[in-house]
Amino acid sequence: MTKPVAIAIHGGAGTILKSLLSPELELEYVSALTTAVNKGYDVLSRGGSSLQAVEASVISLEDCPLFNAGRGAVFNSVGGHEMDAAIMEGAELRCGAISSVQRVKNPVSLAKMVMEKSEHVFLGGEGAVEFGKHHGIDFMDDDYFYVEHRYQQWLDIKDSDSYNLDHSLAPGEKKFGTVGAVALDIQGNLAAATSTGGMTNKKFGRIGDSPIIGAGTYANNNTCAISCTGHGELFIRSVVAYDISCLMEYKGYSLKQACDLVVYEKLVKIGGEGGLVAIDAKGNIELPFNSEGMYRASIDVDGHVKVSIYK
Amino acid sequence: MTKPVAIAIHGGAGTILKSLLSPELELEYVSALTTAVNKGYDVLSRGGSSLQAVEASVISLEDCPLFNAGRGAVFNSVGGHEMDAAIMEGAELRCGAISSVQRVKNPVSLAKMVMEKSEHVFLGGEGAVEFGKHHGIDFMDDDYFYVEHRYQQWLDIKDSDSYNLDHSLAPGEKKFGTVGAVALDIQGNLAAATSTGGMTNKKFGRIGDSPIIGAGTYANNNTCAISCTGHGELFIRSVVAYDISCLMEYKGYSLKQACDLVVYEKLVKIGGEGGLVAIDAKGNIELPFNSEGMYRASIDVDGHVKVSIYK
Repeated sequence: MTKPVAIAIHGGAGTILKSLLSPELELEYVSALTTAVNKGYDVLSRGGSSLQAVEASVISLEDCPLFNAGRGAVFNSVGGHEMDAAIMEGAELRCGAISSVQRVKNPVSLAKMVMEKSEHVFLGGEGAVEFGKHHGIDFMDDDYFYVEHRYQQWLDIKDSDSYNLDHSLAPGEKKFGTVGAVALDIQGNLAAATSTGGMTNKKFGRIGDSPIIGAGTYANNNTCAISCTGHGELFIRSVVAYDISCLMEYKGYSLKQACDLVVYEKLVKIGGEGGLVAIDAKGNIELPFNSEGMYRASIDVDGHVKVSIYK
Repeated sequence: MTKPVAIAIHGGAGTILKSLLSPELELEYVSALTTAVNKGYDVLSRGGSSLQAVEASVISLEDCPLFNAGRGAVFNSVGGHEMDAAIMEGAELRCGAISSVQRVKNPVSLAKMVMEKSEHVFLGGEGAVEFGKHHGIDFMDDDYFYVEHRYQQWLDIKDSDSYNLDHSLAPGEKKFGTVGAVALDIQGNLAAATSTGGMTNKKFGRIGDSPIIGAGTYANNNTCAISCTGHGELFIRSVVAYDISCLMEYKGYSLKQACDLVVYEKLVKIGGEGGLVAIDAKGNIELPFNSEGMYRASIDVDGHVKVSIYK
């Protein structure tokens, strides 16, 4: 019997209701999620590492204009795109993270580069971009990141002091646009990756939970791999990803028990809207969210594919 | 009986040996630590909050050129000073953090401003500076941050690819220059704050554990308040501060048991040199470090003052 492999991805959570999404757009999301989860699963099926798998899935989501990461990153307060990302592997707890980078085609790959080619874990802003240049990361012109509906979202609020926690495709829709993936490979190694464009019209170099190891991203072979999406500030304050790991390691909770406590009780109590994707060393997958919906997909140890948007 | 108050501070850890420190310099350190711990204790004695107390102590350390934070911040690879800081209070788990800010007199106060005057937790680089300007934070000219021995440290390595984890006052001396404080106030509230200038000759906008909530800084009235100093990358990977909190909350460890496991076993196992200051809701204080020395001071619930440098 071959060892199990499994993967789960997300494309953000929030007020995602069927009534707000046209059938055509829904199909586009389902198609993009299916493509992305398969990209990672292909890596795993060929015996590749969970680290490569989560990178492959996140690159696929970053390259798709539908999601708030990479190409589809939202506009900041000066009409640019600032992106954050992190990646971690669970065998040796190595990790890399970057914040507020501009013009980088795939922020998740820059985070992986920081992990593999520097002695550091976390590089910020122009410094991270400089590091990427040294190591040959791909850059794109501003045009590449120009996505019409993102631009409209920004135009709507750019002269105000407000910011949107995420892209809104329709009035009343609130989304926490972040993409992420978690995976278990044939070696029994776990990995997690997260990437985001942050908040529309964000100012002051705001950094959310995505690039924060322990908050938005964490992986540990002894427990689980986690990638979060939600109201980043509350996820940082709750150290969400590592909290789930600790509940498993120190209290003996199952992945499901730990996820349920954190997402449906602890986060709800402080108004921390959002969700996450999680996987444990046996390949159990959890996709909890306390918002209306979460773009998500998974392929479990039996090869069953699931793609969902709503509750 | 009045309720207990207590405070502990650190000024960095590393290869700090009596043989490497002149009696005059040792006296300067002891004096600066004594002043700083008293600043925070005065706040507590007057019934002030632990949040105000840790800010007061850290400001005192930031204003002293001996420590790698604020005025004494080390030079980065282009001869500037980039500083990180974080602050957190344990009642509502509110927190603020900033990274890579320049010319800010007291980074810890900017972190507190982010916590109190923004809807965000973490602001990076020029954005954080811009936010500080909006809210009237104090800035200083580059001259203020010019400290002769820091400049010499930088000159020694500026044309190399190397960086020093910290200021070296003598050959062979390795220090993790960070300052921090934890406190318990009369209301029973805990708080923690950390501030650093990072590594001499650092490049690429490197961010260490200091501003990462859960890694270098954490406070929770149910468990403890922690401020770390050490090899930041390994402290991030280990989510050190929140790990101690989880060991107390989920495994029922005492503050001492949790600190001992994390600092003397888990960190040592991965080569994570450094230490931390910790306090729990009863005012128990722990000051563990696995390096040769750690600049530290504390005033316990009985008013006993301790100031130490070596093992």
